[in-house]
Amino acid sequence: MILYELDGRDGRRFSPYCWRTDMALRHKGLEAEHVAVGFADKSNLDFTDYKKVPVLRDGDQTITDSWNIAVYLDEAYADRPALMAGPEARGLARFVNHWADTVINAALAPIIVADILDDVAECDSDHFRTTRESRFGCRLEDVCGDLEQRIDTFRKALTPARLTLSEQPFLSGGQAGYADYILFGSFQWASITSDVALLESEDPVSAWRERLSDLFGGYGRKTGR
Amino acid sequence: MILYELDGRDGRRFSPYCWRTDMALRHKGLEAEHVAVGFADKSNLDFTDYKKVPVLRDGDQTITDSWNIAVYLDEAYADRPALMAGPEARGLARFVNHWADTVINAALAPIIVADILDDVAECDSDHFRTTRESRFGCRLEDVCGDLEQRIDTFRKALTPARLTLSEQPFLSGGQAGYADYILFGSFQWASITSDVALLESEDPVSAWRERLSDLFGGYGRKTGR
Repeated sequence: MILYELDGRDGRRFSPYCWRTDMALRHKGLEAEHVAVGFADKSNLDFTDYKKVPVLRDGDQTITDSWNIAVYLDEAYADRPALMAGPEARGLARFVNHWADTVINAALAPIIVADILDDVAECDSDHFRTTRESRFGCRLEDVCGDLEQRIDTFRKALTPARLTLSEQPFLSGGQAGYADYILFGSFQWASITSDVALLESEDPVSAWRERLSDLFGGYGRKTGR
Repeated sequence: MILYELDGRDGRRFSPYCWRTDMALRHKGLEAEHVAVGFADKSNLDFTDYKKVPVLRDGDQTITDSWNIAVYLDEAYADRPALMAGPEARGLARFVNHWADTVINAALAPIIVADILDDVAECDSDHFRTTRESRFGCRLEDVCGDLEQRIDTFRKALTPARLTLSEQPFLSGGQAGYADYILFGSFQWASITSDVALLESEDPVSAWRERLSDLFGGYGRKTGR
């Protein structure tokens, strides 16, 4: 198996979507060879028309997009621990996936986007600045604005996860599952690129992050290659 | 089994939490005797300290709160169709439950609260007005404010459900499950009390509502007792 993933400066691993797949592979007990892909130069992905990471090659199969990879891993390696146990858990994890993408990552992006610039590979700096400034419609340094208000919005957005994690150890219940890796990827994206204190220490989400970071021999604490 | 539920004027059934349990019972193929409870007079609930509906009595067991009832029904009637198939689906449904309560119902309440006044039993009118005006800090008629903006906020809040339902027929995947009944309850609350057009007709959430309303012989279209 070969996994094409984003590498930042000095091999820093901050892509939230690649983290989903990294955790998913560990959950399944699978290993994949790592191939670095940048923001600007996608020549490593010449074998597919899809130009976003992660991309997984498994034998003669090419699977693009972190969600499709998770579904593929559960189907192709059904004898290993399930990321999503059955069609109902998969259906509901898809909801969590869309929630993380459209609510959580959308609330996080303005907080950390200027910080990310220091973490992308030097050859990607110009590309990153140009594409993100076009997306936000202003200079990277002006995206965040009132940091305190942004953090407040982010913490409020986490309310459903916070209430759930005050009652059970993982979003997926008693054991970590793919829904947990989805949200964990968002926090990895932020914590590897930014020093902003996103959570109060007594927040149940904070304790959950620690639990996730401890999984697979502390794999979540390995922030570089 | 006896189910204690909120009855509005002329038996109108608008409680989002009672709808969750009503749909859950149909899903399990179970019947319960209905006992009406009002907003002001809770004397029917003298057997428990918990004064919110729904409350289920099954033999010598008393189960309070719609979530606990759903969990109870799956455990006590495990041979019947599962509302939540396994611990992971249950864990994730709990997340949907908190999302519906804190995001969706919170966005809906200001839109419909003044309309609800016409649907509560006449003996509950004063109680309803007093408690809700205290909660919102203004007259019921002034809660909504800019309706168009409220509806816009509500539709944006539905984004994770909309994206999910554009890919699969139910939040729970290929079949309706308890997570679907949770969100359906919110829409029943709104549609039975208010004429506001909450969704555009081409919204995938709209088609999902129709699918939910059609279940169990069109049970979701039975808005009164």
